[in-house]
Formats: sequence, C-alpha cells, structure tokens
Amino acid sequence: MNKISLAIHGGAGTIDPEKLTPQVESAYKAGLQEALENGYELLLKGKSSLDAVEKAVKILEDNPLFNAGKGSVFSHEGKNEMDASIMCGKTMNAGAVAGVKNVKNPIVLSRLVMTHTEHVFLFGAGAEELAKYHNLQFENDDYFYTKERYLQWQNLKNTSRTALDHSGESPVGTVGAVARDWEGNLAAATSTGGMTNKKWGRIGDTPLIGAGTYADNSSCAISCTGHGEFFIKNVVAYDISCLMKYKGYSLYEACEEVVMKKLKSFGGDGGVIAVDKIGNISMPFNCRGMYRGAVSEDIPLFTAIFK
Amino acid sequence: MNKISLAIHGGAGTIDPEKLTPQVESAYKAGLQEALENGYELLLKGKSSLDAVEKAVKILEDNPLFNAGKGSVFSHEGKNEMDASIMCGKTMNAGAVAGVKNVKNPIVLSRLVMTHTEHVFLFGAGAEELAKYHNLQFENDDYFYTKERYLQWQNLKNTSRTALDHSGESPVGTVGAVARDWEGNLAAATSTGGMTNKKWGRIGDTPLIGAGTYADNSSCAISCTGHGEFFIKNVVAYDISCLMKYKGYSLYEACEEVVMKKLKSFGGDGGVIAVDKIGNISMPFNCRGMYRGAVSEDIPLFTAIFK
Repeated sequence: MNKISLAIHGGAGTIDPEKLTPQVESAYKAGLQEALENGYELLLKGKSSLDAVEKAVKILEDNPLFNAGKGSVFSHEGKNEMDASIMCGKTMNAGAVAGVKNVKNPIVLSRLVMTHTEHVFLFGAGAEELAKYHNLQFENDDYFYTKERYLQWQNLKNTSRTALDHSGESPVGTVGAVARDWEGNLAAATSTGGMTNKKWGRIGDTPLIGAGTYADNSSCAISCTGHGEFFIKNVVAYDISCLMKYKGYSLYEACEEVVMKKLKSFGGDGGVIAVDKIGNISMPFNCRGMYRGAVSEDIPLFTAIFK
Repeated sequence: MNKISLAIHGGAGTIDPEKLTPQVESAYKAGLQEALENGYELLLKGKSSLDAVEKAVKILEDNPLFNAGKGSVFSHEGKNEMDASIMCGKTMNAGAVAGVKNVKNPIVLSRLVMTHTEHVFLFGAGAEELAKYHNLQFENDDYFYTKERYLQWQNLKNTSRTALDHSGESPVGTVGAVARDWEGNLAAATSTGGMTNKKWGRIGDTPLIGAGTYADNSSCAISCTGHGEFFIKNVVAYDISCLMKYKGYSLYEACEEVVMKKLKSFGGDGGVIAVDKIGNISMPFNCRGMYRGAVSEDIPLFTAIFK
C-alpha cells in the first residue's frame, strides 16, 4: 500500500501524429524520461515529494522542447513571461509566480516564495526582485530564444490571435509533476511559458492554487495542462480534490468526471496528472494527446503521447 | 421564493470598537448604505446581478474610507497597486486583474476582461494597456493619496513588516458584493488595494477565481475578505460551493464549516458574504468585526460592523 509514485506531463492539445516525426517523438520521450528518472531517484533515496516534483519540473524547464523555462513561447511583445506554482500536501503551503522574465527556473522561485516569504503569489518585477535577493540564477534573453518558438510568434505577431503553446506543429505546452513519497506526503508543481502572442499580461491557470495546481495529503495532488481559462473557471485541481473528499469518489472517478465530462462540456481542452494518498496515478486528457509519463513501485517507468 | 438579494462587505479584521468613534462609524455605515441602495435599485429595476455587484463595488472603490480604488493602501514602493475580480453564475464567465495602477475602477476593468477578451486574468502594465484601449477612466497618483493610508505606510516603510489593510486604527480592507437577480442569476465581485507595505508584487486572494470570488447559479455566489494567503491555500470561495453541491450543505452550513472551522483552525482571519440560488444570505466572520450590509425582499436594508 505504502508506495512512492511520480507522474509528469509536458503539455496537452491537438497534437497531430502525422506531423510528429519519429526523431521528434523520441526527443520528447527522452526529455520526459530524464525528468522521471531524476525525480524518482530522489523518492527512492527517501527525499520528499516536494523535492521530486521540483526536480522533475526543473529538468523540463531546462529542456528547450517544452514550453516552460528555456523553451517558453513568446508574448506579443516578444518576451518570455513565465508562470509557475508548487504546493505541499502535508502543510498545505504553496508558492506561485506569474509574469516573471529571465528567471532560469520559475519552479525554484515558486518554492522560494513558499518557504521564504509569508506570501503565496508574487508577480512580475517584484517576484524577480525576490529571486535576485536570494541569488537565484538568471539568464539573458538569448537563453530563452528557440527558433521554433520565435517563428510561431512571428506568424501570429501581426494578428490579434493567440495560440495555445501546443497548437499546430509544435505540440508542446505546460509542464508539471505530482508525487507521493515514503512518508505519504503529496506534492504538485506546474510551470509554463503560457500562450504564444499572449497580450495584456495574461495569466493562465498554471500559477493559480486550486486551478492549475493543488495538493492535499487527505485527497490528491494535481497538475493541469490545457486551455487555462477553462481550468480557472472550473477550479479544476481543487474540484477533483473536493469530489474525493466530499463525495467519496476514487481518484480515477474524480478525474474522469472533471476532465472527460465537465471540462469537455465547456469546450475546455486539456488534461491532468494526479496521484492519490496511497500512490495511485491517473492521467486523463480530453484532447488528442498529452506528453506524459509515470513511474511507481508497481508501474515500470513509461512515457506516452497519444491514448 | 424567487427573491432578489444583495450583500456587501468593506473588509474584516481586528477592528477595535474603542478606537472607532461614533463619527467614523457613521461614515463607514453611510458608505456601505450608499453602495447597497444603488446596487439594490438596479436589482429592483430588473437589472442583472452582475450590474448590481459591479455598481456596489464601484461605489466602495470611489469611497476613500475603503481599501480599494481611491482608498487603496500603499505598497512598499509607495504605489497603489490594485486587484479585483468578478464572476457571473449563469455563464460561469469571469474576469480579474492584479497589480494595476491608476485605473479608477479595477472592478470595471475586471468586467471588461470578462466581456471583451478571451482571457480571465490579466496583470500589471498589460491590464492597464487594455483599460487604455477601451478608454477606461484613469486617475493620477494624487487621486489615490489619502493621508491616513500614507501615514500607515510611513510607519511600516522601513520595516520588513506588512500589514493587513484592516489592522490597527484603520480597520478597513477589501470590498465586495454578491447578488441574486429576478432571473435567479448569481454574481460576485471583489476589489482591494491589498496590504500596506506589500513587497515583491504580492497578490492576495481577491483576484483569484475560486479563492476570493466565485459564483455558480447551481450553488452560491461568494466574496471573501481577510488574510488572503489563507484564503488562497483553502480555495475558500469554491470550497463553500463544493460543500453545497457535493455534500448537500445549506449555504449557512457551508459558510460556517469553511469560515468558522477550517479557516479558524489554520489561523486565517476573515469572513465571507454569500448568497445562494434562492436568495438566502450568509455573512460569517471569525475575527472581531466585518464591515457589511445586506438587503433583500425579506431583509430590510441594514449595515453592521461587529457581531
């Protein structure tokens, strides 16, 4: 019963299998595998679920293939503005940042908000100031430049359209991780570069506790990916927890209800990764594909993209 | 059964009755009454609950006594940075802004985010740009200057302390409104200047859908006030809705459970105003006082501060 588990995602959306060459598919799966192996190694060593989800997300942030950290998409102003959040299911503490620029690992900054301030949620220049104060690593704009993202932005720049990071040829979105450690503590973490050509300082569900990220030892840990506005209005992550706490649903039933029924009826594309208090994993998505992977004591490490 | 209702708050906290002179108390109550009368007039005329909550909050934002709009507190940098959100229980649409400066009525901007963009949540300069684009009213820094707020900030400026807007002599915080209209549609709105001497771009629960504000015709409309970080981690507004939807609690039972038990056990000071789908009103708070008032077809207009 007392099992350790780790699940991760690298975004969900209208991924077209025909446009995904075997080489590209392998590269994505290798990225997911690296994050899983490193996060799970920490769990095996007895480290906390918080350490494991932070590590897994940090690796995905450092990988240019995923829309978070280094691989973040470009905003309308040609900037890389990033959001992230983390939550501890034992203490119910949480930390989140939105609209931060040039911070190498927004997930590390989120954890710092949780552990080193009395606040939960910081944005923009203020959050960057905290990162500087604590000597977090910064990178210049060049570090965040990836040719593919730049071209995506150029295509949209003079239109009023935004694009979910995983639309079109480059089906890669938000990244996230959920875990259960030996002590039975749950944790969740999510990070993103948001939507290509986003304007007006748009914030999605990723940094919002209860919407994109949530963890509570008495129910589950959740990290979401998809069309953020729908996830905010449906308070997706906390809704799954409430169905378990208040209606006695299993993790699987609660995830199905929220992702496959509610969100779908609203037209909200996306998926979630989830782990419950005994380490069960659920990873439903209501769109074509979701970059994902998991490993636990009874599930050998796997990565997948389509159903 | 089919009744219209409006409830509002003007902040909650450690209000000291001995420091509240009769003159000041009257001024606060007059401000609450003006907001209630104007909002309720719209409901009586058959206008929507969205119109009513926007109107009531706008009046409180324009009143220098309350910590929102004109009366907003000062941040560590001596700025007035405001947050607000609004949600429609019929469509489940929502709009929110955080960290906006010089916008006269952040609640009007929130509604504009809801109705005129594909997004839910905008922050900072980007949100201000949208306001300019739609010719919303801006005011210069002088408009937001109030002597009392300035002195509060001066007292804290060279410390690392922040203060909830309603601490000490000036017991005024967040403002908010919830309503039910003739059609049975619910709406909620919340607005704030945040915490005095806040640093790092701190965002509280006010602009977070599910935390500080939530509305769903099938359950209730909620607006929160109090120590924001606790309201975020407990996803307070949506939690009340879930207890009604999933456990069959009445509005009163759900509010008591969340505000008087859960929040209190976490040390989260504050309160909520709530209206359910048939127009019942609940207004619990777990601290010394909450500036509040309500009116419905069976409750004559009243305003109150203490229990």
